[in-house]
Amino acid sequence: MRAQPIGRLGRVDRRSWLGKVRDAVDSLVKHSPSRFAILIFASLIVLFTVLFSLPIASADRQVTPLHDAVFTAVSVICVTGLATVDMATHWSPFGNTLVFIGVNIGGVGVLTLASILGLVISRRLGLRAKLIAASDSNPSRIHVGPVSERQAIRLGEVGGLLATVAISALVIEVTIAIGMIPSMLAAGYDAWHSFWYSFYYSAMAFTNTGFSPNPGGLEPLVGDYWFQSLLMLGVFLGSLGFPVIFALARAWRHPHRWSVHVKLTLTTTTILFVAGAAMFLLLEYGNPKTYGQLDAGPTVFQSFFMSMMTRSGGFSTIDMHDLNGSSLLVSDMLMFIGGGSASTAGGIKVTTLAVLFLAAFAEARGAPSMEAFGRRIPRDMLRLSVSVVLWGATIVAVSSIAILQITKQPFDYVLFDVISAFATCGLSTGLTAELPPEGVYVMALTMFMGRVGTVTLAAALAASQRRQLFKRPEERPIVG
Amino acid sequence: MRAQPIGRLGRVDRRSWLGKVRDAVDSLVKHSPSRFAILIFASLIVLFTVLFSLPIASADRQVTPLHDAVFTAVSVICVTGLATVDMATHWSPFGNTLVFIGVNIGGVGVLTLASILGLVISRRLGLRAKLIAASDSNPSRIHVGPVSERQAIRLGEVGGLLATVAISALVIEVTIAIGMIPSMLAAGYDAWHSFWYSFYYSAMAFTNTGFSPNPGGLEPLVGDYWFQSLLMLGVFLGSLGFPVIFALARAWRHPHRWSVHVKLTLTTTTILFVAGAAMFLLLEYGNPKTYGQLDAGPTVFQSFFMSMMTRSGGFSTIDMHDLNGSSLLVSDMLMFIGGGSASTAGGIKVTTLAVLFLAAFAEARGAPSMEAFGRRIPRDMLRLSVSVVLWGATIVAVSSIAILQITKQPFDYVLFDVISAFATCGLSTGLTAELPPEGVYVMALTMFMGRVGTVTLAAALAASQRRQLFKRPEERPIVG
Ligand SMILES: [K+]
Ligand SMILES: [K+]
Repeated sequence: MRAQPIGRLGRVDRRSWLGKVRDAVDSLVKHSPSRFAILIFASLIVLFTVLFSLPIASADRQVTPLHDAVFTAVSVICVTGLATVDMATHWSPFGNTLVFIGVNIGGVGVLTLASILGLVISRRLGLRAKLIAASDSNPSRIHVGPVSERQAIRLGEVGGLLATVAISALVIEVTIAIGMIPSMLAAGYDAWHSFWYSFYYSAMAFTNTGFSPNPGGLEPLVGDYWFQSLLMLGVFLGSLGFPVIFALARAWRHPHRWSVHVKLTLTTTTILFVAGAAMFLLLEYGNPKTYGQLDAGPTVFQSFFMSMMTRSGGFSTIDMHDLNGSSLLVSDMLMFIGGGSASTAGGIKVTTLAVLFLAAFAEARGAPSMEAFGRRIPRDMLRLSVSVVLWGATIVAVSSIAILQITKQPFDYVLFDVISAFATCGLSTGLTAELPPEGVYVMALTMFMGRVGTVTLAAALAASQRRQLFKRPEERPIVG
Repeated sequence: MRAQPIGRLGRVDRRSWLGKVRDAVDSLVKHSPSRFAILIFASLIVLFTVLFSLPIASADRQVTPLHDAVFTAVSVICVTGLATVDMATHWSPFGNTLVFIGVNIGGVGVLTLASILGLVISRRLGLRAKLIAASDSNPSRIHVGPVSERQAIRLGEVGGLLATVAISALVIEVTIAIGMIPSMLAAGYDAWHSFWYSFYYSAMAFTNTGFSPNPGGLEPLVGDYWFQSLLMLGVFLGSLGFPVIFALARAWRHPHRWSVHVKLTLTTTTILFVAGAAMFLLLEYGNPKTYGQLDAGPTVFQSFFMSMMTRSGGFSTIDMHDLNGSSLLVSDMLMFIGGGSASTAGGIKVTTLAVLFLAAFAEARGAPSMEAFGRRIPRDMLRLSVSVVLWGATIVAVSSIAILQITKQPFDYVLFDVISAFATCGLSTGLTAELPPEGVYVMALTMFMGRVGTVTLAAALAASQRRQLFKRPEERPIVG
């Protein structure tokens, strides 16, 4: 008789059913965090599709067509903000509550998943250590060693992180919502609607979703600079990403203690915000359909608003259909870049772009390594960034070709809505709402690939470090 | 009295005026090869602008407007093939001769300059060594050492290279031209026109320019598979690049002796050629304006023809204006990629794209280094490739925004013509010919930046290697 099998059996027997599930999830999180993320996202989308299909979810108590239910579920869980139905009128109060809960799960869940994944890729530091590492300049982050079993992630840690993120999100959303109520009352809504719309808009801002609850959307609120500024603040905080929010909350008075990730995200975000606003100002100030009839002050403010919203917010005070082609292209670029890593924003992420430019600058200076804020950026970050950009470009290209071929609509509108879907921005030229069912499914897939893909790809790639057994001779092709 | 100044003065005095110029050029080539290339290009463009402006250059003996003369000069010297005037009827025989000479200087000159620059970037090996190195798997190429004064390039070597390239170009162009004469005769042209058109088309194919000398262009020759195949052969050889042609000429029976550069160029070119044709077939077989009325065989052939020509040839048997939006996007991507390094083709070059994908594959496999055909690709190639792509994307974006704002034309046509200009492809939706003068100058600048920039950028960047005096601490941002 051998002791081991019995011992193992005995241990399994002592465990509860819940314990087994817990072990399985623990194992999945530990061994394949990217598959875990994809599984979670897919399950949420299936669940919300079923819920949105229920007659009680729609205002007219009819079953919502499958493609619209799928699209809404994906758009909500991926915090995109694109819609194939009128979000303000199609859904019942139950449906609207689903949307509200869905974007919070999607937004906060993404923050958490991304943080978990970011953690796994960073050589499996302990979770707390990783969060501190990513948010200030603690030297432990620099440590790269073999993976210790004890440092691997446990489900308990995931729960703790989820709670931290949820509480932060709640505090920010409630604060902004309270600030919005006076604006809603001033716009003529009654007390209950002012309350509900404020919380809805606040959640839509922080989660970077961009749905409007009221018929007419932002129109009754355009020119209310207090309200628009609160929207921008919510979008801005959400798009920075959890590690940056965490760092700012801990050490906003001490910029020298911020990590390179925080500095890089803030710098790139600021540059894109100002440059985007300048471009919209330059290209649209003379367009009679957009800013042409506004005075100088409002034009400048709305340009900044537009610049912030293209980076993933998805709210707009003008019709994207009326923009000049040049502004559509500028928006395409800003949307594709998106927000910060581990944020509610989409796109390839600002740090990805920053790493590409740091590489080009290093190349131009003939410097041996990429540098930012007095730190070297490891060489493998460039490879990871290139992979993310290639992934994004491939999805946008394939999806655009498919939508172009299905609809035969003008390329500028197709490209705009496809990039908006990929980067989960939510701005639309109106094309998405007019798509036939097969186009709706293509767009839903684009949102899913853009949101889940970009978040998990970097993690999956970076986690698959493999040791090389032998070294091949080196050879240099010619490029350029 | 000190000896040295007198000695130096004495040496200078003994030198002829020509010797001084030679020394200056030698010094420029050696110390700043990219500035040398830009200077040569700019001088040629100024010279050809003056020549094209002369009344004897135009068929009606009028002075050609400056913007048209500048555009034609840039288009000819950069072997683009875009036109703002009707190339078949606007120019006199003298003008047509200028075009013929111009594309050969531009095409052959680019090959040579690119080779010189490629040589400088490759740690300044001797010129012959470099050519051999880039074209077969001679181990000397792997040597990376300090720059020896004796290994620096001398003007004499440049002359030798120019002669080699010119003779190769001549042999290829004459062979193809002779093959085309029967087709021209069969199409009903007289002996002289058949001869002239054959040489013109052959030169336009090998230099990847894409102008047509006869009114009606390729129309009388569509369906002549022999002629179209010769055109494709010329474009194909020109777009491979000199190092690859050199390797194939030396060792076409021995693929195992080819360098990674040769293998990478041939593989990527083949993949893009077949994939492009498959996409055009799929997206256009049902389009009544393009391949809709053709049978299966001709549709397949014309799809391959189209795929080859988008990669920089610039000839077309169908009107780009009639393509589906999806096919325009596929063409945009193929044009942007372009042909081989040190070739008459434009774009970011196939090896640049290949390096990006090799990096992504290495990342996905978790391998520590990029590999292709049993060789490691040095890490710094990725940085160089990223720089070239960012340069290309920036030019296309800025130029597209400018043209969109100037013309307010549909984005698909603007993007197509701008990428065609950047990648010196020469296909057009008809937009370029309709541009106002300021748009013509933007497009001319785009061609110049695309052609000269991409060729010299890689060299300028790679040449500026600098030693780092101290090492900064490493820190890892989050991307994706
Ligand atoms: K959004
Ligand atoms: K061309």
